[in-house]
Amino acid sequence: MKSIAVVGYGVIGKRVADAINVQDDMNLIGVCDVISDWRIQNAIRKEYDIYAATAEAEKEMKAASIPAKGNLQDLLKKTDLVVDCTPKNIAAKNVEIYKKLSIKFILQGGEKHHTTGHSFSAENNYQSAINLDATRVVSCNTTSILRTLTTLKRADLLDYARGTLLRRATDPWESHLGGIMNTMVPEKDIPSHQGPDAKSVDPELDVITAAVKVPETLSHMHYWNVKLKKQATKEEVLNAFKTSTRIKLINYDQGLVSNNTIKEMFLDMGRPWGDMYEVALWEDMLKVVGDELFYAYVVDNQAIVIPETIDAIRALTGIETDAAKSIAKTNISLGII
Amino acid sequence: MKSIAVVGYGVIGKRVADAINVQDDMNLIGVCDVISDWRIQNAIRKEYDIYAATAEAEKEMKAASIPAKGNLQDLLKKTDLVVDCTPKNIAAKNVEIYKKLSIKFILQGGEKHHTTGHSFSAENNYQSAINLDATRVVSCNTTSILRTLTTLKRADLLDYARGTLLRRATDPWESHLGGIMNTMVPEKDIPSHQGPDAKSVDPELDVITAAVKVPETLSHMHYWNVKLKKQATKEEVLNAFKTSTRIKLINYDQGLVSNNTIKEMFLDMGRPWGDMYEVALWEDMLKVVGDELFYAYVVDNQAIVIPETIDAIRALTGIETDAAKSIAKTNISLGII
Repeated sequence: MKSIAVVGYGVIGKRVADAINVQDDMNLIGVCDVISDWRIQNAIRKEYDIYAATAEAEKEMKAASIPAKGNLQDLLKKTDLVVDCTPKNIAAKNVEIYKKLSIKFILQGGEKHHTTGHSFSAENNYQSAINLDATRVVSCNTTSILRTLTTLKRADLLDYARGTLLRRATDPWESHLGGIMNTMVPEKDIPSHQGPDAKSVDPELDVITAAVKVPETLSHMHYWNVKLKKQATKEEVLNAFKTSTRIKLINYDQGLVSNNTIKEMFLDMGRPWGDMYEVALWEDMLKVVGDELFYAYVVDNQAIVIPETIDAIRALTGIETDAAKSIAKTNISLGII
Repeated sequence: MKSIAVVGYGVIGKRVADAINVQDDMNLIGVCDVISDWRIQNAIRKEYDIYAATAEAEKEMKAASIPAKGNLQDLLKKTDLVVDCTPKNIAAKNVEIYKKLSIKFILQGGEKHHTTGHSFSAENNYQSAINLDATRVVSCNTTSILRTLTTLKRADLLDYARGTLLRRATDPWESHLGGIMNTMVPEKDIPSHQGPDAKSVDPELDVITAAVKVPETLSHMHYWNVKLKKQATKEEVLNAFKTSTRIKLINYDQGLVSNNTIKEMFLDMGRPWGDMYEVALWEDMLKVVGDELFYAYVVDNQAIVIPETIDAIRALTGIETDAAKSIAKTNISLGII
């Protein structure tokens, strides 16, 4: 069984580790970070093998009685593939190490496309990632864009898409460090980077985005205007969206009227951290006017890339060469139904 | 000189009263409300004649030593035109009184178009309001839509417009009563009402809006995708926007990166309450891609309709039959340059 390491045990890394740990066709060989505080205790509770990312971190872990098994080099000796979830600058340095050791690796969406030469979104381009040395799972927002637009494209409905992205201010656990308060902060440039980034997976997409940060921490929200290739019914559009197993159609009339109510439902469902791996798209709000389509959805920025990362592991290691089978396996393991 | 009364001394009413008071071609005859607390003290400080809206309010004002000159009926005897700024249900009842007494009246955008049969936006349809008995100044969001799209239409650039409206959670002074916190709340229906409402002034406009409430109190923000009639340069679009005296082009590179910085600038300028009567539109963010135009702007929901209301008074009373002259006069009086 392939041995998978998680380097960087932050908001994404801890989720990826848990998700690997529940698969029956891959082995979580260890997690690696520099932290010695409450955050690494979670890995101890879960009995993951812990590795220190630096010599200094190894000392600090010993001082804090954290049972480190060794350092990054020790971990990499046992590893077939690394999922690197470290912050931007660190990942770039780590990549050189993985390449030297000929270890396959997966980066997260904060990195540039050229770092791996391949960007990944399971329902779109799984096949092209099979047996590659490296890929990059695109960011939360870009993942949501690809999932939704890919279904419309497959149904031959998509001409072009224009989106306004309302971004959460900061991650919940870091909100004490200062997000924005009682204001909104637009991204300076239109198009914002997410639209062009979607083309790193699917160059054919005609998509332009604008983005603005709002003072809340739960999730992102997107509003889309899509030009359809032809007049279509609402039912045709919904049927297209339903071909994705990772779009969850929700209804305003069911009381799901906001980010916080959606979050509470996923906590009710017992998902770890209330994680929403799916794009939650409002079915009753969705509107078709002639050949134009309007809809809105919510994106859990901490969770949406987790199933994508598991699929990327299967593709790169060649454990599974059928996209649909990998996606189904991942979905079942994470409770996506 | 025509005598103008302000009925409803809330967030809009107090601003309208001040704006009337600085005009040299109309007379503020009095303000009328039911309140006896800190809010009416502002009218006392400004030495406005105060009237009680109901018999009960008259008693309460006496008990609170507020020097009420009489009741609504007393005020209306001296009035040529009422600007009604009361909440929705009350305005509907008042309208019957104004009609019975043959007093001209102006309603705010919360009321329906059919209540007056005419909806007003100065730069668009001033002429059609001249000497009418009543009009309705459209809401803050609708005013901003009309101002911006009217300039594009005049320049023969506008094909159709699609907007996403990020609405402030509540008015600043009422935020202790509970706005939304750490979440976003979409309006259930697409299109939201603002797009269709703009057609009450200009039926030719092809405009569709979607709206979402965000947890901040300073102002609204709009993101627009506009289909142009033809390919155009950024300069052509900016030149169109510059034909409105009530669109203020701002630059992100000047540090104006958010609602709160824009608000602070208007406070620096010494505007009452930091009011921004203009639509503040980001010049450097604005992007033209082929025949598509993308831009974002900020709307001060408490202030934008104030100059419109002054112009509506001039139109209805016939004080000024030239739209441009009224707009210029109002602009100078309020410091819009």
